[in-house]
Amino acid sequence: MRAVDIIIKKRDGFELTKEEIQFFIQGFTDGSIDNYQASALTMAIFFNGMTDQEATYLTESILHSGDVLDLSAIEGIKVDKHSTGGVGDKTSLVVGPLVASLGIKFAKMSGRGLGHTGGTLDKLEAIPGYDINMPEENFIKQVNQIGIALVGQTGELAPADKKLYALRDVTGTVESIPLIASSIMSKKLASGADAICLDVKVGSGAFMKNEEDATKLATLMVNIGKNCGKNMTAILTNMDEPLGLAVGNSLEVIEAINTLNGKGPKDFTELCLEVAAHLVVDGKRAKTIEEARNLLQHQIDTKEGLHTLAKLVKAQGGNEEYIYHPEKFKEAAHKIAVLSDKDGYVTHIDALAIGNAAMMLGAGRSKIGDAIDHSVGIVLAKKVNDIVKKGDILAILHTNKTQNDEIAQIVSDAYTIGKNTVDSRLILKIIK
Amino acid sequence: MRAVDIIIKKRDGFELTKEEIQFFIQGFTDGSIDNYQASALTMAIFFNGMTDQEATYLTESILHSGDVLDLSAIEGIKVDKHSTGGVGDKTSLVVGPLVASLGIKFAKMSGRGLGHTGGTLDKLEAIPGYDINMPEENFIKQVNQIGIALVGQTGELAPADKKLYALRDVTGTVESIPLIASSIMSKKLASGADAICLDVKVGSGAFMKNEEDATKLATLMVNIGKNCGKNMTAILTNMDEPLGLAVGNSLEVIEAINTLNGKGPKDFTELCLEVAAHLVVDGKRAKTIEEARNLLQHQIDTKEGLHTLAKLVKAQGGNEEYIYHPEKFKEAAHKIAVLSDKDGYVTHIDALAIGNAAMMLGAGRSKIGDAIDHSVGIVLAKKVNDIVKKGDILAILHTNKTQNDEIAQIVSDAYTIGKNTVDSRLILKIIK
Repeated sequence: MRAVDIIIKKRDGFELTKEEIQFFIQGFTDGSIDNYQASALTMAIFFNGMTDQEATYLTESILHSGDVLDLSAIEGIKVDKHSTGGVGDKTSLVVGPLVASLGIKFAKMSGRGLGHTGGTLDKLEAIPGYDINMPEENFIKQVNQIGIALVGQTGELAPADKKLYALRDVTGTVESIPLIASSIMSKKLASGADAICLDVKVGSGAFMKNEEDATKLATLMVNIGKNCGKNMTAILTNMDEPLGLAVGNSLEVIEAINTLNGKGPKDFTELCLEVAAHLVVDGKRAKTIEEARNLLQHQIDTKEGLHTLAKLVKAQGGNEEYIYHPEKFKEAAHKIAVLSDKDGYVTHIDALAIGNAAMMLGAGRSKIGDAIDHSVGIVLAKKVNDIVKKGDILAILHTNKTQNDEIAQIVSDAYTIGKNTVDSRLILKIIK
Repeated sequence: MRAVDIIIKKRDGFELTKEEIQFFIQGFTDGSIDNYQASALTMAIFFNGMTDQEATYLTESILHSGDVLDLSAIEGIKVDKHSTGGVGDKTSLVVGPLVASLGIKFAKMSGRGLGHTGGTLDKLEAIPGYDINMPEENFIKQVNQIGIALVGQTGELAPADKKLYALRDVTGTVESIPLIASSIMSKKLASGADAICLDVKVGSGAFMKNEEDATKLATLMVNIGKNCGKNMTAILTNMDEPLGLAVGNSLEVIEAINTLNGKGPKDFTELCLEVAAHLVVDGKRAKTIEEARNLLQHQIDTKEGLHTLAKLVKAQGGNEEYIYHPEKFKEAAHKIAVLSDKDGYVTHIDALAIGNAAMMLGAGRSKIGDAIDHSVGIVLAKKVNDIVKKGDILAILHTNKTQNDEIAQIVSDAYTIGKNTVDSRLILKIIK
């Protein structure tokens, strides 16, 4: 088998076999196939796509390039969730404790990576003492004991993905649906869960700009997961504004705590309940989504979800007092209000611009190794379809900087204010 | 400017600017742009093509990656020809002397490369003493004195082409018309001629499998040349059989000599006259192709072309006696007849198979550095539309091997014999 023949076969629109895809990914991982052949193949895939079967083989080949977590020592059904990356997305901090409080095992390993705001790991590290590092043995033990663990990656999950993504990033093939799907799914499948709920963001600020592409991506990921024997759900959600109100690490943890107390923002609470409900059904604790939502609402009302979050924090070395007394979180030095300069209704909030503004405040990383300031961020006061008057507060910057004018302007510019309300739905579609 | 942005622009179907193409090729040549980015760009070009203007910029960028011959010290109009690679193609050996005998300067530098049969340089080296190596100064002096030189490359013409071709070869982008056109034209333009005649082969054995693709390639090359201020002609020729009768180095030199004596095979003579006629018109020695052909026929009848070939051979250290007495060429040890096993008409001769058979006899190289046996090859006894009877000789192997059964079988299999003659034209189209 020769790499160039595989490239030409894909270039000419033929379907690759399992053996061809395995040969290519193995060779790419061990270096016997060069980067320049991999970039040619990925460009050919960009143009000609892949069948669901090819994408499944690709996912499996990437998955088996490294360690695969064996969660068989964890009793019961293990579930996981993944978001394609939203601004203000702290869903795992709510969904995990809620489903775990119902006896469904939530065993999640996250990578770090870059982002406008920190990832789940960075948010958890805003809680003093919380340790994301844990040997696999302890990880399994903790999930068996308290039903949940949220840790950093141990071992090397899907190293081919890391190498391939770095190559795609500099060769113009990031935006390929089968390549995105296999990248996400290889890591998700390496994490060993039985059921996975995917949150696929749609909108100008998201990776998928329109519902059609997002549907394709979500459907392909669901099919790959099913082909690999998993229970799959994908939820398409609108990213025409940030999720919830808080953007920034400790600010988002506080918002997650509020949500587990039944006092979360409407859109964020709704998404958490929807994601969790699918996992509850897949976890065999309810027969229907409606039944699952009722159960979950009960876990909020009785604070069972909140208690599980506290148990998680304690188990991983964090100070659980912060969960019950979020006022303990250190606040940023300054709070600066961004005011509206006109009357009307908020019709759009550029989530990417808000995310960038938060990153400029120090809430996220622009390059690997950047330090994160957990206290800073942005809290939105107005969301889409809220009425505003000139001089009303649109958002508040939480900042430790002395010069914030530029960032305040970015946040102000992120708001579009019009004369009428707009049609806005958070959850666009469920794909099973 | 970033390489990845240029890749994405081409990937998304936009036209690249001169500056972008220059930046990419310069970076690729000096190594600041990696192979993996170049292979991604070439794959994007494979899918989205290039405009004539882009292909011209690409050609110029590749051309200026190395030395460009300055032929301004040669008086008069300098002409050149190029074939996309035919089996049995010894056209330069006839066209060069013919046009030079009319006072048009034929200054040709050839690269070596691989091939079923040797290239022009290998054929010339079949003449004892002929030296293809010559400093640029002497090259110019010789062309001024006798009107012709046929030498190997001096300096480094279009090094980016060499590097890019090697990359395309292993990444599946050889078959891209703008990449083929810029590769050929960059080297042709680097050789400094004022007028160029291209022979673009069409057919199952050629690089261009059908007339439509060949027309696209030829038109693009003509337009690139014109954009660079050259007089251009492209001739599309059928490669549904080898050109002429002889395939193999000294065998082809002998056939060229016969042709200059007015005793060449009909198809080969016709092509030589057509190619040379366009160069004679571009060289301002005739107003029409008809007038040019009459002049050329006169040069054959008076042996002026033959004398010019002899002068060329002598000037480059070769034994000119071989030109007047081709029976001096050393013959291969064995001549083995390949016989027809049926009655009918020859409807097709697989040129590539004949070329491969000649290479197996030792007439060409399968890898760089292979030695060439100048005496061996194949002489066809029957061509397309010739009538054959069972037992008639189809071709004769000239061989120094003791075991030739396999090669004889390949030659036999290369012949298709049917019940009726077929429509067969050598020259399909002229593109100016």
